Amino acid sequence: MTAFNMIRFIERKRDCGKHTGEELHTFVDSVMRGTVPDYQISAWLMAAFLNGLDDDELMHFTKSLALSGETISYQPEDRIIDKHSTGGVGDKTTLILVPLVAACGSRISKLSGPGLGFTGGTIDKLESIPGMDMHLSDDRFREQVNTIGCAISGHSLKLAPAEGKFYKLRDVTGTVPSIPLITASIVSKKLAGGAYGYLFDVKCGSGAFMCDAVRARELAAKLTDVSKKLGKTCLSVITDMEQPLGEWVGNSAEVYEAVEVLSGRGPSDTRELCIFLAAAMLEMSGRAKSRDEGAELASKALDDGSALDKFAEMIRAQNGDASVVREPLKILPRASHTYEIRSDRDGYLSRLDALLIGEGLRALGGGRLTKEDVIDPSVAIQLPHKVSSKVAKDDVLIRIYYNSEPRFRESLAYVEKCWEVSERAGKRKLILDTVY
Amino acid sequence: MTAFNMIRFIERKRDCGKHTGEELHTFVDSVMRGTVPDYQISAWLMAAFLNGLDDDELMHFTKSLALSGETISYQPEDRIIDKHSTGGVGDKTTLILVPLVAACGSRISKLSGPGLGFTGGTIDKLESIPGMDMHLSDDRFREQVNTIGCAISGHSLKLAPAEGKFYKLRDVTGTVPSIPLITASIVSKKLAGGAYGYLFDVKCGSGAFMCDAVRARELAAKLTDVSKKLGKTCLSVITDMEQPLGEWVGNSAEVYEAVEVLSGRGPSDTRELCIFLAAAMLEMSGRAKSRDEGAELASKALDDGSALDKFAEMIRAQNGDASVVREPLKILPRASHTYEIRSDRDGYLSRLDALLIGEGLRALGGGRLTKEDVIDPSVAIQLPHKVSSKVAKDDVLIRIYYNSEPRFRESLAYVEKCWEVSERAGKRKLILDTVY
Repeated sequence: MTAFNMIRFIERKRDCGKHTGEELHTFVDSVMRGTVPDYQISAWLMAAFLNGLDDDELMHFTKSLALSGETISYQPEDRIIDKHSTGGVGDKTTLILVPLVAACGSRISKLSGPGLGFTGGTIDKLESIPGMDMHLSDDRFREQVNTIGCAISGHSLKLAPAEGKFYKLRDVTGTVPSIPLITASIVSKKLAGGAYGYLFDVKCGSGAFMCDAVRARELAAKLTDVSKKLGKTCLSVITDMEQPLGEWVGNSAEVYEAVEVLSGRGPSDTRELCIFLAAAMLEMSGRAKSRDEGAELASKALDDGSALDKFAEMIRAQNGDASVVREPLKILPRASHTYEIRSDRDGYLSRLDALLIGEGLRALGGGRLTKEDVIDPSVAIQLPHKVSSKVAKDDVLIRIYYNSEPRFRESLAYVEKCWEVSERAGKRKLILDTVY
Repeated sequence: MTAFNMIRFIERKRDCGKHTGEELHTFVDSVMRGTVPDYQISAWLMAAFLNGLDDDELMHFTKSLALSGETISYQPEDRIIDKHSTGGVGDKTTLILVPLVAACGSRISKLSGPGLGFTGGTIDKLESIPGMDMHLSDDRFREQVNTIGCAISGHSLKLAPAEGKFYKLRDVTGTVPSIPLITASIVSKKLAGGAYGYLFDVKCGSGAFMCDAVRARELAAKLTDVSKKLGKTCLSVITDMEQPLGEWVGNSAEVYEAVEVLSGRGPSDTRELCIFLAAAMLEMSGRAKSRDEGAELASKALDDGSALDKFAEMIRAQNGDASVVREPLKILPRASHTYEIRSDRDGYLSRLDALLIGEGLRALGGGRLTKEDVIDPSVAIQLPHKVSSKVAKDDVLIRIYYNSEPRFRESLAYVEKCWEVSERAGKRKLILDTVY
C-alpha cells in the first residue's frame, strides 16, 4: 500500500469521486492516531456533506468508526436487540421499552448518547432516580444484559471513539445535518455495541432533528440499508414529533410517566408507541412469530405487572432506588411552583408545538445548551390534552412546574405560543411509516 | 452588530446562501486576530469551493484580504501598472516587460509571489544575478518605482497577510483550484500593492495551472470583473502554455533569454508576447493612445537598447551585477554537463509538452516540491525548435544542462516523452484571447 495522502483523499470527495474501503479505513485509522490535522478532517467533512457518500462508502466508513476502539460481543443465538431514537420532546420510550421487551423474554441492550439539545437524554432522565448508576463499564453492562435481560447505560468512550472525535468536529463546522454522516454516527455505535438487530425510531416534526417527512424517510432508509449491508437485522420506524409524546415533558416527570405506562396505565399515545416498537423488537429477536403476537405479549406484560417488575429489577441491578416503581411521586423530585395555561374558548386543541415546548423545558433548566450545563431534573411541563382533543373554555391545556421565577418567565415566552384551539381539529398519525 | 457566529457563517455558504460584505469583513478580521480555528476556516473554504462566491461576495472578500495588513499607495495620476501571470514553463515575460514598459515611460510595480511548483518563480530567476536584492521593503520598493519607474520584488508578508494565511490552509485542504478563491488571492495582493491598473496573463495548457480553455477564460473574466468592481483599470489576456514560452527553461537561462529579447534579439514568441503585453499596459497607463502605438513604442525600446538600459538600471538599484546585460554568459551560472535529444526523422515538431518539460526541470533541481527545497539556478532545458517548425532527422530538439547524474536520469524520464515529430504540424496560437 502506498502512503495515505490526505490531500488526494479530500480532493477525491471534493470532485464527487468514490472512496475505497481500504482508503476509508486508513483515513479513520489516521484520525485516531492523530496524524491528520483537524483542518483537513473538516474540509473532508464539508466535501462529504455536500457531495455525499454512497452506500458502499457509508458501510466502510461506519465499520471503520465502529472498529476504532473496544467492541462488545454476545452469543449470536441470544439475538440481543438494540434500540435508538433520534430524539424528541417527551420521548421516554426507551425507559419503557427496555424493561418491557426484556419482560417478554428478549434481551435488549441500550447504550445511550448524552442528551444535548432542548431536552435531557435517557441518562439524565434515569439519573433522577436516587442512586441510579448510568455509567456501567462495558463488562458490567454485557453481564447485566446476559443475566437479567436488559441494561441502559451511557455510551462508554471506549466504544467507537473515532465517532466521538468526528462528531465533536462536525458540531463546530456546520456538518451535523448530513444524512450519510448521521447514519455513520448512529450505526457505528450500535455496531460496536455488539447487538444482533437494531430498531431505529426516527422522529419527525417540529420537535425532532428531522423536521420534514422526506428527510426523515431518507434517514430511516439509510439506517436500514447500511445496517443490512453490515449483516444486521434492522427496522426503522418514523414516528410523529410535531407534538410531544405523552403527557409529561421533563426528566423526573418522564420517569413517572414510564412507571405509569409500565403499570398498565398512562397516556394512550405513549402506550401505543411502546407496544408497536416492542412488537417489532420481539419479532426481530424471534421471540414472537409475528408483529401481532409481539403486540399481544407486550400488552400483557404491561397489564400483568411483569414489565414493571423488570424495570424494578434493572434499577436495583444499577444501584437505583427501586421503590420508585411503587411510589414514584415520593421518590422523584418535583419542582415547587406551578403555572397553568387555560383554553380561551371551546373547541379542539389543534396545535401543541413540540419545539416550543422543548425550548420551554430547556429554559426551565430541564435541558442543556452546552455540555457543562447542569440539569434540574424536577422541572416539567404537563400536557393533559393532546392534539385533536375536544377542550372547553378554561380547561387547563398546559401546566408548568418550575423552581426559579426568571427561568419560568423565559420558559413562558416559548410555551405560551405553543398551542392553538380551533373549531375543527386536524389529526396527525403517531406512527407515520415503517422502513424494512 | 451582533457577535460573529462562525458556525452560522459556515452554514450559510454550505446552504448556498450569500454573505454580506460586513460578514465577510468580520470573518477575515477574526481569522487575522486568530479567533477562528483552522478547522472552521477550512470547512468554509470547502463550502466556498463547492458552492462558489458571487461577484459581490468576491469583491468584499478580496477587499477584506487586501486590507488585512499594510498597503502601498501611489499618486493616482502616476497610473502605476501591475502585472500578474498565473505562471507557466519558461515564462520569463516579467523580466522583460517590467524594464520594457518603464523604458517606454510608464511606471510599473511588480510584486512577485514565491515560485512553488515545477519551475522557479521570478524571484528565483532574478536571484541568479549576483548581488540582486529581491526582498525590498515596501518603502524602498515604492521609492524605486517612483524614481526609476520600475521594481520587481518578492511580495512582502506585510501586504495582505490574510491572503497568505488562507492560501497556506487551501494548500493542504484541497481547496486551491477554485476560480473565486484564486481570484480573491491574486487580486487582493494587487490591491494591497496600490497600482492603478492590472494586467493579468492567464496561461492555458498542459504547463499551466489552468489546463483547459474554458476554465482559463472563466478565471480571466473573474479577474477582470472583480478588479473593475474594485475601481481598477484591468485587462486579462489568455496565452498558450501547451508548449513552453521561448527557447530556454531554467532560472539563469531565462535571465539570459530576457537579456537577448531586451537586446532586440531572442526567440520570436517571447518577443511577440512581450510586445503584445507591453502595448496593453502602455495603453492602460495612457502612455500610448492605442494598442498599436504601444506596440510600436515597445518594439522600438527593444531594438534601440533603451529597454536593456532600464533593465541594467533596475538591477543596479537592487544591488545586482548589471554587467549581466552585456556579458550574460560570463555572469550567469550554467550547469556543467549537457545531453541532447535529436529527431528520429524528417518532419514537423508537433508536440513539446510544457508539463513534462517543467517536471523535467524540477527533477534537475530547477524547481521546488516543498518550500524548503533549494533551487539550482544553473540547470536548464533548451528548445531550439518550437511546435510546427520543420525539422530534419538528427536535428537537436532538446538540450538538457545538468550537474548531477541521478537528477539528470530522473529528468530524462519526463523529458524524453515530451516531444513528437509528425508529417504534418499542428499550429497553436500564442495569444488565445483578451478579456476587458
